[in-house]
Amino acid sequence: MAIPAWKQVAETKRQSTLDAIPDKWRIKGPIPSATEQRDVTGAYIQQFLTEREIEITETDAVGITERTTTGQWTAVEVTEAFCHRAALAHQLVNCLHEIFFDKALETARALDAYFAQTGKPLGPLHGLPVSLKDQFHIPGVETTMGYVGWINTFQGISNDPRYLTHESELVKELRAAGAVLYCKTSVPMTLMSGETMNNIINYTQNPKNRFLSSGGSSGGEGALIALRGSPGGFGTDIGGSIRVPAAFNGLYGIRPSVGRMPYEGAANSGDGQNTVLSVIGPLATSTRGLTLLFKSVLGQSPWLGDPGVLEIPWREEVEKETRGLVEGAPEGLAFGIMYDDGEIEPHPPIKRALKIVEDTVRGLGHRLIKWEPPSHHTAANIAMRAYDLDGGADVRQNFALSGETPLPQVVIDTTGSPQKAAQEIAALNVEKREYQKRYLDYWNSTTQLTGTGRPVDAVICACAPHASCIPTKYATVAYTSFINVLDYTAVVLPVTNADKEKDVVQERAYLSELDRKTDGEYDADVYDGAPAGIQLFGRRLQEEKILVLAEYLGEKIKKASA
Amino acid sequence: MAIPAWKQVAETKRQSTLDAIPDKWRIKGPIPSATEQRDVTGAYIQQFLTEREIEITETDAVGITERTTTGQWTAVEVTEAFCHRAALAHQLVNCLHEIFFDKALETARALDAYFAQTGKPLGPLHGLPVSLKDQFHIPGVETTMGYVGWINTFQGISNDPRYLTHESELVKELRAAGAVLYCKTSVPMTLMSGETMNNIINYTQNPKNRFLSSGGSSGGEGALIALRGSPGGFGTDIGGSIRVPAAFNGLYGIRPSVGRMPYEGAANSGDGQNTVLSVIGPLATSTRGLTLLFKSVLGQSPWLGDPGVLEIPWREEVEKETRGLVEGAPEGLAFGIMYDDGEIEPHPPIKRALKIVEDTVRGLGHRLIKWEPPSHHTAANIAMRAYDLDGGADVRQNFALSGETPLPQVVIDTTGSPQKAAQEIAALNVEKREYQKRYLDYWNSTTQLTGTGRPVDAVICACAPHASCIPTKYATVAYTSFINVLDYTAVVLPVTNADKEKDVVQERAYLSELDRKTDGEYDADVYDGAPAGIQLFGRRLQEEKILVLAEYLGEKIKKASA
Repeated sequence: MAIPAWKQVAETKRQSTLDAIPDKWRIKGPIPSATEQRDVTGAYIQQFLTEREIEITETDAVGITERTTTGQWTAVEVTEAFCHRAALAHQLVNCLHEIFFDKALETARALDAYFAQTGKPLGPLHGLPVSLKDQFHIPGVETTMGYVGWINTFQGISNDPRYLTHESELVKELRAAGAVLYCKTSVPMTLMSGETMNNIINYTQNPKNRFLSSGGSSGGEGALIALRGSPGGFGTDIGGSIRVPAAFNGLYGIRPSVGRMPYEGAANSGDGQNTVLSVIGPLATSTRGLTLLFKSVLGQSPWLGDPGVLEIPWREEVEKETRGLVEGAPEGLAFGIMYDDGEIEPHPPIKRALKIVEDTVRGLGHRLIKWEPPSHHTAANIAMRAYDLDGGADVRQNFALSGETPLPQVVIDTTGSPQKAAQEIAALNVEKREYQKRYLDYWNSTTQLTGTGRPVDAVICACAPHASCIPTKYATVAYTSFINVLDYTAVVLPVTNADKEKDVVQERAYLSELDRKTDGEYDADVYDGAPAGIQLFGRRLQEEKILVLAEYLGEKIKKASA
Repeated sequence: MAIPAWKQVAETKRQSTLDAIPDKWRIKGPIPSATEQRDVTGAYIQQFLTEREIEITETDAVGITERTTTGQWTAVEVTEAFCHRAALAHQLVNCLHEIFFDKALETARALDAYFAQTGKPLGPLHGLPVSLKDQFHIPGVETTMGYVGWINTFQGISNDPRYLTHESELVKELRAAGAVLYCKTSVPMTLMSGETMNNIINYTQNPKNRFLSSGGSSGGEGALIALRGSPGGFGTDIGGSIRVPAAFNGLYGIRPSVGRMPYEGAANSGDGQNTVLSVIGPLATSTRGLTLLFKSVLGQSPWLGDPGVLEIPWREEVEKETRGLVEGAPEGLAFGIMYDDGEIEPHPPIKRALKIVEDTVRGLGHRLIKWEPPSHHTAANIAMRAYDLDGGADVRQNFALSGETPLPQVVIDTTGSPQKAAQEIAALNVEKREYQKRYLDYWNSTTQLTGTGRPVDAVICACAPHASCIPTKYATVAYTSFINVLDYTAVVLPVTNADKEKDVVQERAYLSELDRKTDGEYDADVYDGAPAGIQLFGRRLQEEKILVLAEYLGEKIKKASA
C-alpha cells in the first residue's frame, strides 16, 4: 500500500525544519537512545557548545537583559548562542516546528545598530531571544499548529493573503519591546493534550528523561527551555497547557487570568468557544524571568491592540504590598495546601515535592491550612464539557483537510458527537458561574482559619498526579483545569526530581478505580530523574501577588531541596 | 368567554402593588389623561407634597448623603419623603413592581440609631433611598421581572427555598454601604424592549410626556427618577436598557463595561448567553450622583462576592488625570461626534440636541472630529443574533409558565426558531471579536486627526433616533447596542426637550427605507416636551474617565441649553 499523501507532506515539512539548521550546528552521528542517554540536559548538551555559549544560554532572562540593555552583550552574540542551543535541542527531543535563525540574526543586528546609534535599548527585552508556541503568526514564518492540513495555508485556508504575512498582536508587542524571535515550538495536534505529539514532528520527549513526555500542550516550549535553548517563551493554557510543561520540565510558568496577555491574531483550536478560554502566559527558567516577560508585554499597553485585554497595567502597588507581607512577620502569610484532589493521589515523587514545600512553608513560620475546596472534579467536568461543546467538529474539520489520523493522546472527542445547542451552552455557563461563586465563598471562608485576618494568600497543589508521564499514560487534567474554570492565577515552581531510591510505592487504600490504575502506572525506574513541580495559585487577576509569592517561595524551596 | 387565569393572577398582583401604598399617599379622584395633563413632573407632582418633601426629593444623591452622613437629615425623614413621592409616581405612570415602604422605614430607623450611637454613618450611602429594577432579589420581596408566571415563585420555580429569601449581591453591597431599599421598578416582559410594558402593570409612561414611552428596559427606573421618586437607582443594559430610559427621561445613566458591577444572584433573561452580556449600572439625577453610586459599590469590593467582577477599585489616578485634561488647555481635549448611524437620521429634537452639544464643545475650544467608525449596523446585527441564539426558547418557557400573551414591543423572536449550535455560536463570538478589533483600530487611528497626540477622549452620539418614542414605534436599537457589542463605557446626559416650534421636519434625502419610515413617525405635537439626551462614550473600562468628562460636559451643556 502506498504511503498516504498526508504522510509525505508531513515528512517534507519535518525535514524542512531540520534542513533549516545550519550544517555547523548539526549533531554528527546518531542521537543516542533514551536507554543510552536518558537525560540530555546539562553536561550532555553542553558538550556541543563553547564556554561562552554555555555562559550566555545558562543566564536567565533578567540576567541577559541586564547585559543586552546596557551594551555588555550584543544581541547578535546572544541570539547566535540561543539559535545554536535551540538547534541542538530540536535534534535531541523534537521540540521545534519552525526555525528562522536568519531572520533572528537580522533583528539582532538591527538592535545592535539601534543601541550603537542611540546608546539606549529599544525596550526592556532588547536583544532577548524569546521562543513562541506554534500558535503565533510571524510574517515570513509558517504556522501549522501541528496540523498537516495547515501546511502551506493560513490556518487551513489555501491562498489566503494572510499566509506568511499575518502578525499576531503578541508578536508585535514582543518585537516593540526588543525581543528577538527565532523559533516556534511544537504543540500536540488540536492543542488538547497533556503530551506533545503530532503527525509532523511525531513526539516531543522530556529532556531530563527521554522515556517521558515533555508535557502539553506547550510541550515544545517546556522541552526547549529545559535544554536552555530559550531563556523564556510564551505558551497558552486552556486546561494546564502552560503549567504542565513547566512542571514536567523543572521550569517556572504562569497561567494568568483571561484578559492580561493579548491573544489577538493568534491561531487557536475551537476558536470562539467562550465558556472556558485559553490564555497566553510565559514559561522561563526563573520567576523573575516570568515577571520580566509578563511586565514587558503589559508595558506595551496590549489593551490598545487587543479588545480582549483588560486595561490593567502592572500593579506596582500590589507588588509592593505583597513584598511587605513577605518581609513582615512570618505568621502574617498564610498558605493553603491540597495533597490530593479526592479522586487520585499523586505518585510518590509529587507527594515528596508537596512535602518539601509544606516543610519549607512550616519551617519559615508561615500559617498553613489544609485546602478543602468545592470538588475539583466538578470543575474538570465543566471544563471537559466546554472543550467538547462542538462535539469535536472543529478538530475533525482540521484533520479532514489532510486526511491525517488523530493520535490517541488527544483528550477531546475526535470521533464526533452532536454539537450542543444554545440553551445547553447557556446552562453550562451558569453552572460554571455557580461553581466559581462556591469556590470564591470557600476562599473567603478561610479568613476564619488563617489567623491573619485575611483568607489564604495562595494555595499549593500538584499540577498532575505524575512527575512528567509515560507516553499515553496521562492520568487526569483535574489537577490543572479547575484553574481555567475559575480563571485563577497560577504559577508553577520546580521543586525536585523523581528519585527511584526515595520515591517508592507505599501500600495504601485507593480513592477510586482511577487512583488504583494511576498508582499502578508508577514505575520508579522509568520515572527516575523526572522533574516534579507544584503550582501556587491565587484568585482571579492576582498575577502581581502570585508572582511575588512564587519568587519568594521558589527561592526558599530551591535552598530546601538543594 | 371567561377571562384567562393568567389575567386574573396579573390583575391581583397589580392590585397588591397598589394596595401597598398607604391610604394617606393615594391620589384622590381619577388621574387626568395625557391630553389633560401631558407632563406630570415638576409642579404637577409637587401639589401632593409638602415643601420639606419637595426640598428633600429634589436634592441629588450627593446632596442627600452630604446631609444624611453628617446627621443633618435623618434617614427616616428622607426615606418617608421618597416613599411618598414614589407612591405618587407609580399612580401617575405605573413605574413600580414592588413597594416595601415598611421595610424601608425599618432600615432607616436602624440607620438613624446607628448614627445616634456611633456618631458615624454606616457607609457612603447612609440613609440614601435607592430604587432597583425588578431583577434584584431582596429577602421578603417578590421578583416577577414582568412575567406573570413568576408571581409566587422564585424565577418561575414553584416551592423553591430561595423564594422571598434570596439576596442579590448588589443588594447586599448597597445595604452595607448604608442605602435604604424601598421599591422595585417596572421592566418590560423579557427585558428585551426599548419600552416598558408587561401583562402585570401594563405600560410605564413617560412622566414628561405621557403620550410617550419611558423607555426600556429599565423604564420604571427612568420614570421614577424623572418624577424624583428616587434620587438614583440601578438598572441593567444589554442593548441600551439603562441609556434609553436615561435619555428618554432627562436623566444621567452609565452603562459600564462588563465586570465592574456585581450581577451575581440577580434574575435575568436568557441567563448564560455570554456572547453579549447584560451589565448593571446606575441612573441618577446628576453625574455626581452616578459616580457616588458607582464608587460606593466598588468600595464594597464586589469582586469578593461576585466571581464575574474584576478587581479594579475606583481608579483615583484616572479620575485625577482626566480632571487635569479638563482643567488644561481646551485644545488638549478631543471629542468625536456622530450625527447619524448611516441608516436612520435622528428626529429633529435629537438633531438639535446634538447641535447644542457640538456648539458647546466647539465654543469651549475643544477639538471635535466627525466619527466615522465601522458600521454600527454590523454591531447591531451581531447583538441581535446574540440575543436570539436560543431562538427565543428562554422567553417562551417563561411565557408558558402562565400562558400569558407576548406583547408586540419585545424585540427578540418570541414565535420560536431553531436554537443555534455550538459552532455557529463560536463563529458569532469570533465575528464579534473581529468587529471589536476593527473598532479599536479605528479609535486608535483618530490620533492622526485630533491634534492632541492621543485618540479622541470620548465620542458623542444619539441614544435613539427619537426623543422618547410613541408606543410601539421604537425604530432601532442600533444607536445603543454597538456599545454592548464593543463592551464600551457610555454615559447618558440630558440636553434639551422636544419643542414643537423649533423641531420641525425638513425636506431631506433619506438614507434608507427605515429612515423614511422613522421620519414619517415624527409628530412635532405629540413629541413636544419629550427629553432629548445624548451619550458620551469611551473605550472598554473607561468609567472613571467618562464620568469625569460627562460631569464636565453636562454642566456646560446645562448652561448652554438653559
